[in-house]
Amino acid sequence: MANWENLSDLLPEPKQIAWEKSEIYQAIIDQKTKPPGSLGALESLALQLAQVMDGSPRVEKPTMLVFAGDHGAAVNGISPFPQAVTRQMVQNFLAGGAAINVFARQAEMDLWVVDAGVIGNLGSHPRLLDEKLGQGTADYLKGPAMSKIDMEKAISKGRHLVKDLYEKGVNTLGLGEMGIGNSSSAALIMHAITGIPLEDCVGAGTGLDSKGIEKKRNLLAKAYQNYSPSREPLEVLRRFGGFEIAMMVGAYAEAAHLGMVILVDGFIASAAYLVAWKYYPEIMNFSIFSHCSAEKGHQRLLEFLKAKPLLQLGMRLGEGTGAALALPLVRAAAAMYTEMASFAQAGVSNRNG
Amino acid sequence: MANWENLSDLLPEPKQIAWEKSEIYQAIIDQKTKPPGSLGALESLALQLAQVMDGSPRVEKPTMLVFAGDHGAAVNGISPFPQAVTRQMVQNFLAGGAAINVFARQAEMDLWVVDAGVIGNLGSHPRLLDEKLGQGTADYLKGPAMSKIDMEKAISKGRHLVKDLYEKGVNTLGLGEMGIGNSSSAALIMHAITGIPLEDCVGAGTGLDSKGIEKKRNLLAKAYQNYSPSREPLEVLRRFGGFEIAMMVGAYAEAAHLGMVILVDGFIASAAYLVAWKYYPEIMNFSIFSHCSAEKGHQRLLEFLKAKPLLQLGMRLGEGTGAALALPLVRAAAAMYTEMASFAQAGVSNRNG
Repeated sequence: MANWENLSDLLPEPKQIAWEKSEIYQAIIDQKTKPPGSLGALESLALQLAQVMDGSPRVEKPTMLVFAGDHGAAVNGISPFPQAVTRQMVQNFLAGGAAINVFARQAEMDLWVVDAGVIGNLGSHPRLLDEKLGQGTADYLKGPAMSKIDMEKAISKGRHLVKDLYEKGVNTLGLGEMGIGNSSSAALIMHAITGIPLEDCVGAGTGLDSKGIEKKRNLLAKAYQNYSPSREPLEVLRRFGGFEIAMMVGAYAEAAHLGMVILVDGFIASAAYLVAWKYYPEIMNFSIFSHCSAEKGHQRLLEFLKAKPLLQLGMRLGEGTGAALALPLVRAAAAMYTEMASFAQAGVSNRNG
Repeated sequence: MANWENLSDLLPEPKQIAWEKSEIYQAIIDQKTKPPGSLGALESLALQLAQVMDGSPRVEKPTMLVFAGDHGAAVNGISPFPQAVTRQMVQNFLAGGAAINVFARQAEMDLWVVDAGVIGNLGSHPRLLDEKLGQGTADYLKGPAMSKIDMEKAISKGRHLVKDLYEKGVNTLGLGEMGIGNSSSAALIMHAITGIPLEDCVGAGTGLDSKGIEKKRNLLAKAYQNYSPSREPLEVLRRFGGFEIAMMVGAYAEAAHLGMVILVDGFIASAAYLVAWKYYPEIMNFSIFSHCSAEKGHQRLLEFLKAKPLLQLGMRLGEGTGAALALPLVRAAAAMYTEMASFAQAGVSNRNG
């Protein structure tokens, strides 16, 4: 897929995994005082964490980055909420009152809000990272959502934010998003890259009724027709993406490059993930799929990625909420690997024969 | 179902819920800064917690009681693990090395181990509650697993343990279990009470292969034939139960009577739950179904109870592990209710129209 001219400058390769140690890690898991396999998905997760963290799985300074941006296409009425809600919700994040604040606090997860391109002036706040690339993107019904230069800047900014966290000792990262209209961007990106029919990618977003979904689907079909289809993922991103989505693409790639554990959130976060994954499927080695969203396209997208989500709670909020709720399971899997006694250590008889 | 002569002495009624306040609680949830319903199962959970906790949901001193007991029928070869593993695993619990120890620590959940009837002498330990009713139950292939007096004692002991915790300020309770052979007891209880065919109730337990499952199924079919079938749940419990299962029946009933939140764990825990539920279906108001186990009968049993489990992780270990893993979701739901800002508080515009 490396048709992009300067791909390796733009998106770095994922770190190599020392696969040859996997058998050792698996043997450690199998010797824990439980029937083999009886911890189900937690065992696969423990193995993955051991692989990523060189046999010493431990969640260190888990951090949530919430990327916010506005979408030019939102003027076309693709969301039941007014566009101003993007900025208002960012202020809610900074005041600590949103769902992601509550869940991140519960999970003892550090939270930063990134202004990727929110309309209006957000002022300054100790938890706000000002990376604004503009007053929202352009309307993709009329042309590309962003220039090539801005897209590359967004990816680069996403990468730098993650590198800074890594240098501060963060080894586990959640990426969330906020942007009125961004389930439409995600639907178009999913459709363009996977070839899955548009109607299977378009859902209610923040809560459209069936008439609203139909209008959204028709608008998005038009947006797609106006575009000379390219399946080059970065070209798709530039055409339909939000600044927040483009930053997330860079953030995923950098996190996998540095060998961090990535908690993938819901539909929009997974659409951003898809762009990075198309270039480097090995990013999967570092990725934990937190949950399956109730937003229409998400289950299909997870199936396309062959990703098994940890949680199925019928949530469809974004913000990183699924990732924050999944973090305790990640900690539990790591602790299972490092703290649980083996049959020999505990003096427990193993199974007969 | 109240055919048992002294039922109300034995099993107390669940507390009444002030349902008339539910609309107020739901309105509070709907005014949080998120699209209505977008937190899925967490919203139903928050409503339930508000109902149980009178509008102030908060997990206080969450505690896991792990009930352990041996089963006379285990001599017939219904488990791939030797019977001594029950005692060995209790010692592992006391040493802090088992999965439930790891997960309870992660969830900041207090853990007590109850000797309901383990074979052998466990000595004393600050975390061990000695409620031993015998050196395991009798073999239900030959007669009732326990006498009526012992069953009533077990229920009473389970109730007292929960009452003590309640008086110490515990408001959220997980019930786990350990006992080689107890998935067989659970299968028989499920079959006898629900009428679901025995083959749908019998699974691999700790890891039987298909031949082992067939042997187990044949033995359990014989055990059931030897019994003049009564669907009176307490009679079924007496015939097939373990002491740990009987204590859990009392523990569930007392917890619902006192208005505590109950985290129901996996297959065996749900079979014990079924006994209490048959007398008092209102126990459901206080119950959170932690997870759906990979043990064969569990999904069917949850469907029978119309229970929606929070987690589906393919686990099949018991010990309370699913309940401990679900606790962070319960805390998150409570915190969502109490800490999250409303649209008015946050100055966020609500949806159009």
